[in-house]
Formats: sequence, C-alpha cells, structure tokens
Amino acid sequence: MRIAVDAMGGDHAPYEIVKGAVEAQKELGVEIILVGDQGQIESELKKHDVHIEKIRIHHTTETITNDDKPVYAVRHKKDSSMVVGLNLVKEGNADAFVSAGNTGALLAGSLFRLGRIKGIDRPAIGAPYPTQKGISLLVDAGANAECKPRNLLEFGIMGQIYAEKVLQIEKPGIGLVNIGAEEGKGTEVIKQAYELYKKNSLNFVGNVEARELSRGAADVIVCDGFVGNVVLKLTEGVAMVIMDMLKQQLKKNFITKIGAAILMPALKSFKKELDYTEYGGALMLGVNGAVVKAHGSSNAKAVKNAIRQAKSFVEHGVIQSIVQELERIGDDKNAD
Amino acid sequence: MRIAVDAMGGDHAPYEIVKGAVEAQKELGVEIILVGDQGQIESELKKHDVHIEKIRIHHTTETITNDDKPVYAVRHKKDSSMVVGLNLVKEGNADAFVSAGNTGALLAGSLFRLGRIKGIDRPAIGAPYPTQKGISLLVDAGANAECKPRNLLEFGIMGQIYAEKVLQIEKPGIGLVNIGAEEGKGTEVIKQAYELYKKNSLNFVGNVEARELSRGAADVIVCDGFVGNVVLKLTEGVAMVIMDMLKQQLKKNFITKIGAAILMPALKSFKKELDYTEYGGALMLGVNGAVVKAHGSSNAKAVKNAIRQAKSFVEHGVIQSIVQELERIGDDKNAD
Repeated sequence: MRIAVDAMGGDHAPYEIVKGAVEAQKELGVEIILVGDQGQIESELKKHDVHIEKIRIHHTTETITNDDKPVYAVRHKKDSSMVVGLNLVKEGNADAFVSAGNTGALLAGSLFRLGRIKGIDRPAIGAPYPTQKGISLLVDAGANAECKPRNLLEFGIMGQIYAEKVLQIEKPGIGLVNIGAEEGKGTEVIKQAYELYKKNSLNFVGNVEARELSRGAADVIVCDGFVGNVVLKLTEGVAMVIMDMLKQQLKKNFITKIGAAILMPALKSFKKELDYTEYGGALMLGVNGAVVKAHGSSNAKAVKNAIRQAKSFVEHGVIQSIVQELERIGDDKNAD
Repeated sequence: MRIAVDAMGGDHAPYEIVKGAVEAQKELGVEIILVGDQGQIESELKKHDVHIEKIRIHHTTETITNDDKPVYAVRHKKDSSMVVGLNLVKEGNADAFVSAGNTGALLAGSLFRLGRIKGIDRPAIGAPYPTQKGISLLVDAGANAECKPRNLLEFGIMGQIYAEKVLQIEKPGIGLVNIGAEEGKGTEVIKQAYELYKKNSLNFVGNVEARELSRGAADVIVCDGFVGNVVLKLTEGVAMVIMDMLKQQLKKNFITKIGAAILMPALKSFKKELDYTEYGGALMLGVNGAVVKAHGSSNAKAVKNAIRQAKSFVEHGVIQSIVQELERIGDDKNAD
C-alpha cells in the first residue's frame, strides 16, 4: 500500500505532516510518498528515526494555500504538492492521497484529475460527525451548496458503504436531515429525495431532526452541502462556547477552583471524546480514487489517523463497492 | 394593555399557563384574558390569589393539539382557544396574543386572521438565540423552508427593529448565515440577498459562518426557515448531549463526585445561561398583530416572560416601526 501525503498542506506543514507520516509508516506498515519541497521535507525527516526504503520524497516546487481560489489554483499550480499528489493516484503510482490543505482545491483537483465514479452525478464530502453513540458520517459536508434529489440519494449510498466498510458499523442507517420527522416535511428537493429513498432498498431510517443528530439518530447523515456545513461548524462552535462558559464558571471563586482541579482529568477525557484528531479526516466521496482531507490544523496524530483511514478505504474496496451498489440499485429501479 | 393568553396550548396547559398569567398580571400590571375552557380555567384560578378585575376568562369549546394539521385545524376548529384568541386581537379586543400551542397552527392562524404587514411578502418566526454575548434574534426559525432573496432582506429588517426596540440592542448588526464569510459564497438565493443588503442602508455585518453564531457574531441572524430550524434544534441537541456526557464523567468515581458536588452551584448557574424559559418566546414577525409563541414545554416562568415580551412588543410599536422602515427603504430604492 503506497500512500501519497501532501507534505505542504495544512497549518502545521511540513512539521506535523512529516511527523504523522513517519508514525503512520511504522504503525500501519504502509509505504509513504511525501509530496512537496525536497529540502524542507529532508530536514524534517532528519528529526525522526526513519525506515528509509518505506518513505520516499516526490519533489514539487509549488504550494496551494488556503487563500488560493480552488479552481484557479489546481488549473495553474501544476507543480503543486496537491496536484502532483493527485496525479500519482491517477497514474497508479500511489493507492491513495492524503492532504490537510485547501479543501475546495482538493475537491476541485480530485474531480479534475481523478474524475467521478461512473453513475455518480455529484461527488460530496463525507465528514466524521461525533455523537453520543460514536461516529456518524455526514454527507455532504460542504461540496454542493445546492442539490438535486438524485444527489441526496447518491450521498446516502456512498455514505452507507463507507460507514459499513471503514467505520465498521453494522447495517448503518441513513437519515435525511429535515425540519420534522414525518414524511412530507421540508423543501421540494427533500420531499423528492425521501421518495427516492423509499423506492430503493436501502437502510433508510427516514427524516431526522437536527436535535437528534448528536444523539446518534443516524449513522449516515444526509443533507446538501449548505446544511452540512452549518451542521459541522455550528456543532464545533456550540461545543467551544459551552466549554468556554463552563471554564468561566469554574474560575468563579476559590471553592469552584478546587472543584475544577479535582475534575480536570474527567474534563480532559471528556474533551477527548469531542476531539477531531481522533477521527481522521473527511472523504472525497464519489471521485474515482481514494482521497482523504485531514483537518487544516491537523497535528501528527490527526495526520496518522487520516492515513489510517485512507489505507482502510483502499483495503475495503470502497469505490468498487459503490460501483456495485449503484448497479444493484439501477437494476432495482428497472424492476419497478 | 390587554393580553389574550391561550390557556389550553402547551404541554403543561392549563396549569402552568394560568399560573404564569396570574404572575404576569401582578408583576407587569397588564390585563389578562384567559382563552379556553371556563371550568378548567376557573379551577386553576382558585389555586391563586387573583386580582379578579384584571383577569377575565373567554370561554371556548375546542383545542388545537400538536397532532392537528395546522391549516386544517385553524380552518375547522373555529371555537378553539387559539383561533378565538387571534380573533380577539383582530377585532381590537386584545392588544396581543400569547400561545404555547401548535407552532404551525399559530403561524397559519396569525396569517389567516391578522394578515400580513403591508410590504412584507412572507412573515417569519423570530426566535431568541442565546450566545456568549447575550441574546440574538434568529429569523426565520422555521416558517419558510424555501425563500426568495427579498424574503431574506425582509427578515433582517423586521429582526433589526425587534432587536433594537425589545431586546434593547443598540444598532443591532444583521448577519446572513452562509458557508463562508466572503462575498460570493453560498446558494444563488443567498448571493442575491447579499446584494440586496448591500444596496439598502441597513446595519449589515455580512455573511456569518455557523461556527460564529454562538459567539454572538450577529445580533440578528438571518436565514431561511430550513436552516433556521436546523440551527435552533442542533444547538439545543448539542448542548444537551454535552451536558449529558459531562454528567457521566462527573459520576465516574468518588473523587469526581466530590468535585461535582463542589461545582454544582456553578453548573446550575451555567445551565441557567442556556435556559430558554428566561428568554420568552418566538415572534410571528410580519403578521399584522402582536403574537408570541411560548415554548411548548413552557412552565409558568416561561409563560410570564412571553407575556412580558408581548407587552414590550406592543409598547414599543414594533409593527408601526416595521411599516416605517419598509417605507424608508422603498424610498431608498427609488432613489437608486
């Protein structure tokens, strides 16, 4: 298994990226291709005890930053670590690509370089979503602000396969984010998507209200990219503000400070449950290749977990399974 | 000031409703018209020390429940406490109406009975949204799943006036919920709404990402009713799950239990900051009358605060100010 890693993408590149890649190589036994500036990568590699024949460098001269316009950047920065990394996958020189760089550029680049899976109209971003029960998968986390009913069906099909194969959830349930649990709620697009789900033999749990998402009401949370972006970012924002407010309360006086000191280990372990670095990254679902987007502020652990995820994605043949499922559903529909 | 109160609506009706109304009468000096079943209301009133000439009963024979289809219910249950309460406002026999009943029915009933403010295309639900800085107002909290750009502009105009007059926020800033802070992000409708905001002289702070809402990035949070419903319910769900998870952590062992006991007052005071019963209810903004929707599970305090809000809405002439602002903006546009 050869995994290309964008050494230049992310807030802590190349330091944390290289560190995470080295750890992943050791722990997961994969081969790593670090894509980026040779000099910088070499000086990072020197800091670690590296299994040299398992870690290669692929030198590039350009970097796509978060300020770059996605489509323009992937068209013009042809020797960027991101575009070159995607090319390695396209040409069969790597089995997967992991980047903590510009999300929009990674999506656009994946589409341009790898194309779509046959039968998928619009690829989407699948993001891990922490719930009280464990990890759900949110699709679409931001690729398509506007969707057709057919897109929302495809998001569920792809998400279900990923949840089953990689997240190891048995019979994952697909829920459609809506403003009421009953059938017939929501926008025209959502009503039609609901009908499509009912027609096809998928494990569809129906509409799910936003209040139930954190409880783990659906293993695969389906919505358009606008709502998905709101769900992810709002969850992050609310959690941060609650932790802040709680900390303020704990600092109020001498007694609460003692209480806070006693509780610190519990609070830390609680924080860990909400920690994105544990969950790995987001998937470019529907593109014809394994591409994982690690969080922009990824540390080495987050990078390692994103590499683990990419490995699992390839090993479990997620793309092949999506193709098969689309064929099966196509047959279903003809039988209608 | 005469405020009609739906004595039959809400999970704890009529007990908590009557109790809250009696408290509001004493504290706020308003006249109360309790609308609903005379027998039930009388037996509730007996439990309190009532200022009898300030609290009247308007007997009705029907009740709209949460299971009723909104439009059907308001058309057919003509002697329901909700429809009759709205009629009291329409006919000038009450200055405002407060209900903790079926939200959809209250919206439909307000539209049918009271009509729209001239110049408002689509009324919306304005809901208080707790942030780190205080209370913001979210418009639309669920009335219109699909919106035109013009609707999103009107939501901001109405919200701004309410925030200034009733929430007493000086120069409230209007933010448009979007998937990025920069101009040109989001759906076509949102891009056009952004342009409308820029053209009109309002205190528009631009696009606001969901992550910033809990920080209080906008005093008036504008979005369509689908996104608004997701924002409100997700915030509630995330807060509940975080509190649950934290409680689990605090129960872990003897030491953390001691810590938890020390912190209990701080935790309670923290919970109060998130407590909806403090904030009153949601507004039917854009209908031609003062209608406040109290939370379905309102206790007496929440009912009292919803009545306070209705009183303030009328006293500050919110509807007249909306009419004036629409005229001013209409003039602005002609001047363009």
